[in-house]
Amino acid sequence: MKRLSGKKIAEEILSELRPEIEKLILNNIIPTLAVVLVGDDPASAVYVGHKKTACKSLGIRSLEFILPANTTQEDLENIIIELNEDSTVHGILCQFPLPKHLNEASIIDLINPKKDVDCFHPYNLGRLASDNPTFMPVTPYGIFQILKRSGVDPRGKHVVIIGRGTTVGRPLSIMMSLKGWDSTVTLCHSHTKEIRTICRSADILVGAIGRPKFITRDFLKQGVTVIDVGINKVVDTNHPKGGHLVGDVDYKNISDIASAATPVPGGVGPVTISILMFNCINAARIASGLPVLDM
Amino acid sequence: MKRLSGKKIAEEILSELRPEIEKLILNNIIPTLAVVLVGDDPASAVYVGHKKTACKSLGIRSLEFILPANTTQEDLENIIIELNEDSTVHGILCQFPLPKHLNEASIIDLINPKKDVDCFHPYNLGRLASDNPTFMPVTPYGIFQILKRSGVDPRGKHVVIIGRGTTVGRPLSIMMSLKGWDSTVTLCHSHTKEIRTICRSADILVGAIGRPKFITRDFLKQGVTVIDVGINKVVDTNHPKGGHLVGDVDYKNISDIASAATPVPGGVGPVTISILMFNCINAARIASGLPVLDM
Repeated sequence: MKRLSGKKIAEEILSELRPEIEKLILNNIIPTLAVVLVGDDPASAVYVGHKKTACKSLGIRSLEFILPANTTQEDLENIIIELNEDSTVHGILCQFPLPKHLNEASIIDLINPKKDVDCFHPYNLGRLASDNPTFMPVTPYGIFQILKRSGVDPRGKHVVIIGRGTTVGRPLSIMMSLKGWDSTVTLCHSHTKEIRTICRSADILVGAIGRPKFITRDFLKQGVTVIDVGINKVVDTNHPKGGHLVGDVDYKNISDIASAATPVPGGVGPVTISILMFNCINAARIASGLPVLDM
Repeated sequence: MKRLSGKKIAEEILSELRPEIEKLILNNIIPTLAVVLVGDDPASAVYVGHKKTACKSLGIRSLEFILPANTTQEDLENIIIELNEDSTVHGILCQFPLPKHLNEASIIDLINPKKDVDCFHPYNLGRLASDNPTFMPVTPYGIFQILKRSGVDPRGKHVVIIGRGTTVGRPLSIMMSLKGWDSTVTLCHSHTKEIRTICRSADILVGAIGRPKFITRDFLKQGVTVIDVGINKVVDTNHPKGGHLVGDVDYKNISDIASAATPVPGGVGPVTISILMFNCINAARIASGLPVLDM
């Protein structure tokens, strides 16, 4: 089984993006991402940290807005409105999940679709579904880059996705069946019957449910490519950090069946961040009237 | 095989909508649909006629804008802008296809999403994909009504859709896999391999490709419910009208395998128009600050 290193692919993508940023800066366009973080969820803080590091390494300016957990909906909306109006800000990212008293859908809806580098806004999701995307959904497009850069052509392949979340499963199901991607897509979820049988027909199997090691060897057809989007924290008192990260796939027990698989960590995660950077560059290009880049 | 009469279901839906319109009119809200038709495509004229008849039978006011085939993009856009601004108009429907020199995507994008009764606007498609729809896509929701009102519960069923068009196949694939619908959905298209094998795993099979009698008995599992969205005109010199309408399904040769199927004509078509009326009522309710109706 080939280990699909997301870390390596992310580095490859970032190195391709660097000259694009230099070109923009030469034209006095400084790509700028505003990151909004509400509350003190430790995982969110880690993700925001990774995004900041990626920005820094590329020369994307990043602004941080760290708000207390008791921030009101109105205060958060006012910050989004200000960022929408600020022409020096090209991309706006509000780190989810928000504290429970805040309405995430309203916040997404408020972000200017031209600055929606997460591609969460209904308008951008709908452009994707209309086969006319502006921004690409970050994790789905990251998964496509992993496949493409590993020599796995998705055209005509049966892609089975487990998990219908709006961040990964659903936009991935839409994207992979568009013209150009041309996969036959099946979207499975908690109500799916005979899920193992369906999964065993997959040429490419994607786990995006958030259940540790849910996908075992009996889900797999010989030669399948496995993409693991799950990041599940498993408590482990023997571990120095009190636990470790596990994907949705029982990675260690599939090596004689799968032809390739992404590990967790070091698989989909780093590539997702590189796509966020790609979207930031495109947001800066859109704001400047330049055509968006393709990859 | 049970014949799923769309005509009967449409009448049922329309009779449920009538009192809703009466309630609106009692509150001095006259639901109004503006229909824009460019050029003289005979099929489009027939569809517009059906929509007008449905409006009339319900008491929905309909305005018609019939434009010559050589209408410019700018002129068409100006009409849409006027209709967007006219507060007495609740729904705007631009009949597609437009003549080839006109850009359909720009027209869809221009329609105020709150008046987009076809649910073609990216914002509305994206709300659907975000599991938070305002308007329902007309043909997909019509298909759901046919299933529901025929006693076919889609939850946990495998729905296989042939055709990834933005009007039917794609929004149907999104809707049927949402929470509440809970189908496991596979979307097939021209690049799908072993399509017969995939279709034979369907509990509900939907043809939306526009190829006459493409779906034959070897696509079907015993007991499957078949929904035929195709409306294909087949030339027939023996026919008084020079041809007849045929669906995507070889309807006559599946009766011992399928448990139920929609005919063409008289299947999905009439129900689609009743959903358009449902959306018009909801557009009038949205404009008046009332919550949308469910069905």
